[in-house]
Amino acid sequence: MKSLLLSRRDLDFLLYEWLRVDELTSRDRFADHSRETFDAVLELSEQLATRYFANHNKLNDANEPTFDGEKVTLIPEVKQAWDAFAQADLLAMSMPQRFGGAQLPVTVAQAATAWFFAANVATTGYIMLTAANANLLSRFGTDEQIEAFLKPMLAGRFSGTMALSETQAGSSLADILTRAEPQDDGTYRLFGSKMWISAAEHELTDNIVNLVLAKIPGGPPGTKGISLFIVPKYLPGADGAVGERNDVVLAGLNHKMGQRGITNTVLNFGEGVHTPGGKPGAVGYLVGEPHRGLSYMFTMMNEARLGVGMSAVALGYTGYLKALQYARERPQGRPITAKDPTTPQVPIIEHADVKRMLLAQKAYVEGGLGLLLYCSRLVDVQESAGSAEERDAATVLLDMLTPVGKSWPAQWCLAANDLAIQVHGGYGYTREYDVEQHYRDNRLNPIHEGTHGIQSLDLLGRKVPARGGAGMAALGAEIGRTIADAAALGGEIASQAAQLDATWQRLVAVTGEMFTSGDLEAAMANSAVYLEAFGHIVVAWIWLQQALAAHGRDGDFYDGKRQAARYFFRYELPRTGPQLDLLASLDRTTLEMRDGWF
Amino acid sequence: MKSLLLSRRDLDFLLYEWLRVDELTSRDRFADHSRETFDAVLELSEQLATRYFANHNKLNDANEPTFDGEKVTLIPEVKQAWDAFAQADLLAMSMPQRFGGAQLPVTVAQAATAWFFAANVATTGYIMLTAANANLLSRFGTDEQIEAFLKPMLAGRFSGTMALSETQAGSSLADILTRAEPQDDGTYRLFGSKMWISAAEHELTDNIVNLVLAKIPGGPPGTKGISLFIVPKYLPGADGAVGERNDVVLAGLNHKMGQRGITNTVLNFGEGVHTPGGKPGAVGYLVGEPHRGLSYMFTMMNEARLGVGMSAVALGYTGYLKALQYARERPQGRPITAKDPTTPQVPIIEHADVKRMLLAQKAYVEGGLGLLLYCSRLVDVQESAGSAEERDAATVLLDMLTPVGKSWPAQWCLAANDLAIQVHGGYGYTREYDVEQHYRDNRLNPIHEGTHGIQSLDLLGRKVPARGGAGMAALGAEIGRTIADAAALGGEIASQAAQLDATWQRLVAVTGEMFTSGDLEAAMANSAVYLEAFGHIVVAWIWLQQALAAHGRDGDFYDGKRQAARYFFRYELPRTGPQLDLLASLDRTTLEMRDGWF
Repeated sequence: MKSLLLSRRDLDFLLYEWLRVDELTSRDRFADHSRETFDAVLELSEQLATRYFANHNKLNDANEPTFDGEKVTLIPEVKQAWDAFAQADLLAMSMPQRFGGAQLPVTVAQAATAWFFAANVATTGYIMLTAANANLLSRFGTDEQIEAFLKPMLAGRFSGTMALSETQAGSSLADILTRAEPQDDGTYRLFGSKMWISAAEHELTDNIVNLVLAKIPGGPPGTKGISLFIVPKYLPGADGAVGERNDVVLAGLNHKMGQRGITNTVLNFGEGVHTPGGKPGAVGYLVGEPHRGLSYMFTMMNEARLGVGMSAVALGYTGYLKALQYARERPQGRPITAKDPTTPQVPIIEHADVKRMLLAQKAYVEGGLGLLLYCSRLVDVQESAGSAEERDAATVLLDMLTPVGKSWPAQWCLAANDLAIQVHGGYGYTREYDVEQHYRDNRLNPIHEGTHGIQSLDLLGRKVPARGGAGMAALGAEIGRTIADAAALGGEIASQAAQLDATWQRLVAVTGEMFTSGDLEAAMANSAVYLEAFGHIVVAWIWLQQALAAHGRDGDFYDGKRQAARYFFRYELPRTGPQLDLLASLDRTTLEMRDGWF
Repeated sequence: MKSLLLSRRDLDFLLYEWLRVDELTSRDRFADHSRETFDAVLELSEQLATRYFANHNKLNDANEPTFDGEKVTLIPEVKQAWDAFAQADLLAMSMPQRFGGAQLPVTVAQAATAWFFAANVATTGYIMLTAANANLLSRFGTDEQIEAFLKPMLAGRFSGTMALSETQAGSSLADILTRAEPQDDGTYRLFGSKMWISAAEHELTDNIVNLVLAKIPGGPPGTKGISLFIVPKYLPGADGAVGERNDVVLAGLNHKMGQRGITNTVLNFGEGVHTPGGKPGAVGYLVGEPHRGLSYMFTMMNEARLGVGMSAVALGYTGYLKALQYARERPQGRPITAKDPTTPQVPIIEHADVKRMLLAQKAYVEGGLGLLLYCSRLVDVQESAGSAEERDAATVLLDMLTPVGKSWPAQWCLAANDLAIQVHGGYGYTREYDVEQHYRDNRLNPIHEGTHGIQSLDLLGRKVPARGGAGMAALGAEIGRTIADAAALGGEIASQAAQLDATWQRLVAVTGEMFTSGDLEAAMANSAVYLEAFGHIVVAWIWLQQALAAHGRDGDFYDGKRQAARYFFRYELPRTGPQLDLLASLDRTTLEMRDGWF
């Protein structure tokens, strides 16, 4: 039976037929790998995700973690899933070999991870936060920190969190208040409270390694005075054992609309509930240099943003496959041309409007998956580049695409889940079916790791003007190459290329007008509209690339790719017309709106 | 403190300054009323909704009805709300005086109802289904049925349901299988099972009056063979008391994503669990004539569809007011022009993107409320018309607007709830705040009472071509009047009128092309896109009417109306451009998509 999580056929197409990931093995970093090792990881991931993660996705949702004031209880299936993942050595799959990792391309690791997101995004959250934490320590941690914290995480003995936000400082990290007081022994003591900390407090692992942003008193104000600390639940003991309890305590759990299976917490530091070394204060170990914490965190945040994008894609994808199965099996109604009510009902997939909803989902989730794998391949090029120029070119393009890689799937693969419910009709609204949970789970994605609005400010305020517009130029050059390849083929694909070309040129022109207008406030006021138009244009380009990869190949699979590309160019890309018109007008409607007028 | 449910100021504007509902009192039907009686009902509704309905909206959601195999248990607050509503005689507020009703205009009754929907859509569901049931019986029931069932419902002693769908027959009522066998005494015995029956089984009332669609054996196939029956939980006893238990039993409860406080059930008829009169079979009383049941039901369904639209508006409205309050109180970040991180954070309402999200919500919910009240006023004109011509004109326009009145708020006021979550950031995703529940509750509205797709087939397949296009002509004439009034004023409102005029003319032209193409299948294939374009054009017209009503008036309230209208014309109406282009192209992408290509 075909999986209802993801399509392995589609992954193979994207990874091998389009992105030629197997060619990465000619690079030193990936020289130990081959298509066989890639396939083995994908196969294993599908099996583990199906057996240990999908099995408790609903159970996890219906039985969220509970806190009795002392400890947090999860359903036992979460621990079984954690152990299965760790025992398969997947926590280190893309880590360098020097840390005991398999040094797989990120592109393959992301594809593997997508299986777990699709199966159970909540349980997978514990793993992904640990991997992100480990990834950060691998780059910025000392040898001692790597031994004490990173290696036990990769072995699955410890888990990790990322503790950035505070109640009064979510999008605005400049305003965090948690302080880290230097001690004579080189450690720090942290005091403060962190909000929205996922995966903190549970009994899955022997220890929990919190990576915490805090301010060292006397440092510069704002984001330039933020440092990064390791603040473990238990201090390191002798011989790698777990030592004294640190002064980090759970203040409470947040109760969410979705992603209920993963703890989301308020953590207090230095309340004196525990007194490590005989005194209150949470012991913290500085990572890297003082005051540079946010830059370390942002290195990881870019990867975390692509991870969020991939989780959105995976939820959209599994919802699509379930809606497709339902539409094939559910008889209801007759063709609009059939007037005889005694003829049998037809499966709803035969109705044009249902096909529209399925085709839209296909275009969103396969487009989103393509986008994320494309971005991941840029990460691999960065990591394995043969020259500074090659690395820099990949970085410029990846920086440009990251806000889109996070926000586009968060918006449109959530829209796919909305359509998956709609295809199911009333059944889709019940908890007996899966799709309502996917919709609730996916609704987090436009919020965390930088809201939609924050992504739009990042894109328009930072990425577009950065380095004199180098990102736009690099992206334009890549899009231009795709357009030239498609134009050369003539026929429908050349028309799509022309349509993309015209839309991209319009975007470039409008962007220029916005920045030369001298009215920064008006230019930035509709940054979210800009992000949405930009995202749709980028995904149209991803679809044109997929159509190129399918060009000249026969068979249902390739016909499906062509049809989805056709859908995207006919139904979706034209949405950007009115958006670009609005942006070009430097509209001030929102700016002029006054509080008292609401 | 201002209510966070709805804005009374806005209701007064819409009802009195725009729709001039007080002028209805010059008509015979409403002659006993005055602005004072209207205001008294609105005031009472706000108070009761706040005190008895909003008080348990969260509780209801967290503690959904349970079924122990014998009886269904609701939290006690639901009964208190039911009693408060019934004791205030609101169940009969718009019913004719001959049934003991207050004979209020439907426009006022709908505005009153909106308070309850905003406060607690689940608990209000028990009431609205009873009112719809009573409304149907008032038109088609016999005197005996009115005494036995309608009057106890209006007194709050009985409650009502509407039992249409079956597991295999949701959108396709032609395929229902429940059969009604005629008995010698003129009653029927029903056998079968009904699905998705809201408000069936509970202990709020002495009896539950189910209105059930079933087929009398030997009747015509399809929808022409459907009859309507009263199938009460208990048979009528002597002297108005409740008699023997009927053979209607609960097979189970559905568990929904939202609207959890109202039972949604599978009901079995004639399983022999009870044996009224000594034999199995659910006793039913025919309503009206055999085989005409669906037409009776459809009379009510049109009102039910507007009720669904109003509930969507109300959920959107309360979410908007809560997001607005949050945005005013939540400090986060600084203006993009402020570079000094030591300056205090500003309330997020000062950020352009937050203003955009609030303004969009305002435009959706106030536009939707205007649309529904406009439709309600057409119902009042129908009911009180001085001539057949006047009644007919109102009917033609109302028929045309009903699919939009249902579907547009279900889509866009749900979008408002989505934005309300986004304004709240992470807090909006938690169950500690209200908006995630509104979003879950509102997600039902594009599904029940005819899905989005069904509404689009109704609009494009029935309403547009009906009577040789009389509906389009009538709507065009009304829109033309508004445009002429606005054009005469010059300035911005005249520009908006010109924009609406051009868009409407384009819609008319595209509609003509679709119907003269000779390709019915292609014309119908994008009916959902047609519905969405049509809906946005209708709501632009509603906004132009509101802008006209505000024209020449000073003050924050009127400035807010103008700004929301401006938003709608600049950000929203242009979305219809690409939609109309697609429709004009008679695109066959979805039709040509094959099952095997997915």
